[in-house]
Amino acid sequence: MNTEKFNLLPYDDLSRKLERIRKLLAEAGLDSLFVADNVNKYYLTGRMFSGFIYIDQNIQKWFVKRPTYFRGEDVVLIRKVENITDTIDPAVIGKIGFELNHLSYADAQRYIKAFGQPEFGNGDDVLMAARSVKTDYEIELIKKSSDRLADVYSRVPSLFRPGMTDVDLQIEIETVSRKLGCLGIFRINGQEMELNMGSVLVGDNADAPSPYDFAMGGAGVDPSLPVGANGTRIKSGNTVMVDTNGCFTGYMTDMTRTFVFGTPSPEAVKAHQLSIDICNRLAEMGKPGVAASELYNEALRMAEEANLQDRFMGHRSQAGFVGHGVGIVINELPVLAPRSRNILQVGNVIAIEPKFVIDGVGAVGIENTYVVTDDGMKRLTEAPEHLIQLEQ
Amino acid sequence: MNTEKFNLLPYDDLSRKLERIRKLLAEAGLDSLFVADNVNKYYLTGRMFSGFIYIDQNIQKWFVKRPTYFRGEDVVLIRKVENITDTIDPAVIGKIGFELNHLSYADAQRYIKAFGQPEFGNGDDVLMAARSVKTDYEIELIKKSSDRLADVYSRVPSLFRPGMTDVDLQIEIETVSRKLGCLGIFRINGQEMELNMGSVLVGDNADAPSPYDFAMGGAGVDPSLPVGANGTRIKSGNTVMVDTNGCFTGYMTDMTRTFVFGTPSPEAVKAHQLSIDICNRLAEMGKPGVAASELYNEALRMAEEANLQDRFMGHRSQAGFVGHGVGIVINELPVLAPRSRNILQVGNVIAIEPKFVIDGVGAVGIENTYVVTDDGMKRLTEAPEHLIQLEQ
Repeated sequence: MNTEKFNLLPYDDLSRKLERIRKLLAEAGLDSLFVADNVNKYYLTGRMFSGFIYIDQNIQKWFVKRPTYFRGEDVVLIRKVENITDTIDPAVIGKIGFELNHLSYADAQRYIKAFGQPEFGNGDDVLMAARSVKTDYEIELIKKSSDRLADVYSRVPSLFRPGMTDVDLQIEIETVSRKLGCLGIFRINGQEMELNMGSVLVGDNADAPSPYDFAMGGAGVDPSLPVGANGTRIKSGNTVMVDTNGCFTGYMTDMTRTFVFGTPSPEAVKAHQLSIDICNRLAEMGKPGVAASELYNEALRMAEEANLQDRFMGHRSQAGFVGHGVGIVINELPVLAPRSRNILQVGNVIAIEPKFVIDGVGAVGIENTYVVTDDGMKRLTEAPEHLIQLEQ
Repeated sequence: MNTEKFNLLPYDDLSRKLERIRKLLAEAGLDSLFVADNVNKYYLTGRMFSGFIYIDQNIQKWFVKRPTYFRGEDVVLIRKVENITDTIDPAVIGKIGFELNHLSYADAQRYIKAFGQPEFGNGDDVLMAARSVKTDYEIELIKKSSDRLADVYSRVPSLFRPGMTDVDLQIEIETVSRKLGCLGIFRINGQEMELNMGSVLVGDNADAPSPYDFAMGGAGVDPSLPVGANGTRIKSGNTVMVDTNGCFTGYMTDMTRTFVFGTPSPEAVKAHQLSIDICNRLAEMGKPGVAASELYNEALRMAEEANLQDRFMGHRSQAGFVGHGVGIVINELPVLAPRSRNILQVGNVIAIEPKFVIDGVGAVGIENTYVVTDDGMKRLTEAPEHLIQLEQ
């Protein structure tokens, strides 16, 4: 059996994450934190493994169940969660945070019992807040995903052939994405939403309400997965909105571009330009200290000014946000929504996606992923934003 | 706004499911059941929706949050879970079961509070047991997925070109699968395991331990998704084990076939034949009333008899099961494992996957999905089982 370095993060990256978590723990009145969710384990180690992480103000320990060949600083091999208190003195644990928004009730009960502390709290707020401010290393990984996804989008016109359905085009895009290194997984926070490789919306299917809380819906091809392409044939005058999987590293990016077959209606052209204008306006406003809700309000105000508010983020069913954090999963903090209490910070990575649906045409608009800097938001998804013509 | 029929299940199918659930509830000492998990909602309605289901011995109600255009018998539109007790008299609810293995701790707390009953229990055992016995309609959907997946496997030799890596071949298989109607989603019970479209294992990568609890591992191409193909070039003498996504309806099937490039070693040929023999033997034994553990023990006994026990279900890391139920998710009941307490019943749908790894060659073996009948297990995955030659 060979052994393998356990923690794959650059030393500085791990230090910064631990420092941030310890500060947030103290602010939340927690003494320690227990981590069991895959996404949070990846955040703190750069790998997926079967096991747990324990963090308090003095120590961090990686408790590994599987694979069993790992050795390294702070690595402890265990068989079950109950073994953790053989290594960690129960007297130092204090009030411990668990991922109560992610752990199942049954697992949480077991872990709470294993630690046997008189008090426990919700560690998810700490972890979500920590993850909402990206380190330089994380931004590098998101930028890498963004560049590869931009390459995918540049190839879409060459994949299109007249007579195609939305599903046909989606499969072509998926194949190219995978060949360019897309990992194929689409991680979403929460249990309600599902998606495989992304969404291609054409014509009135763009306005089919989905039970999932994505910016746009789509009926899908089967009631077991009611989202996205539904087999609509792409007709002259249709727009084709592509919002596809940006997971090329452990970190995702999020990007939408709209293509057009034939001549789009003047209303579609106008609404698409408005989406670009909203992105630019929000990116300029998005400085540290600004409320996420202000960005949403500004987007809605601009939609209202153009008298497009009833087409904004859907028509039959309208999404209640215009943007969201992006990272290991597609929906992190901050959320750009009317009642969001998030305040922008340097290092937030945010997707902005002002989208409109136009009857008989389809969806229009763009989505970019940005990083918040002292000078406003810097775009990570560098690709042309205009309505892109698909050749007849 | 148009309206749409809500419950998509054939009437008989829904009736049988409800009848079974009510019987299991009574046996579990529960008066009622609350359903919030997507998979269980699909089981009872034939669709994914945002909302909840309530069932007791007298009534069933579909509480729909989104989409909002549904109308129908027993459909109640609600905005939040707390509205349910406006419709259901709290006095009739009694001891209520929640999906405690699936709901997050935070959600479960909220739901428990919303119902405000003095007693509650775990409804997951009831739902898992109900789902483990498939109705005729469910078996039809699994058979449909099986036939389409068999079509995918028949095309693998035509997708292969010498010089390919495992990843290259996997992407070709994914594309063909999607074109033949694979929905692209891969649903797994539990939070620890992830996979996108399946797994292609070549050479010694077949023995790379994964943190996920699949039958075979593989290093994957990125530590954020450590499973499956890792970029290994397919060389003469290698086997190519393909275990790919069988989700062509809301119901999955599970099937593995092994291909070989060049001449396989005698040990590989022998182990592959043993896998076929184990499948046949277990299918013959697999009658109602037989313990799932007996099937595992028989498989292990046959591996030992051939002196291949240290190659059985992996080598560096060995999986502790030889089969598992299949349905809406890939890992349902029963589990064919040494300590399984499941007893086979008519209507169980079970994947059997005795696999072996051979140094320097790769993985060999097959996987079939079967339905338990009074006469033993009937194979649903009808496709050739021998080692299939890839042309040079």
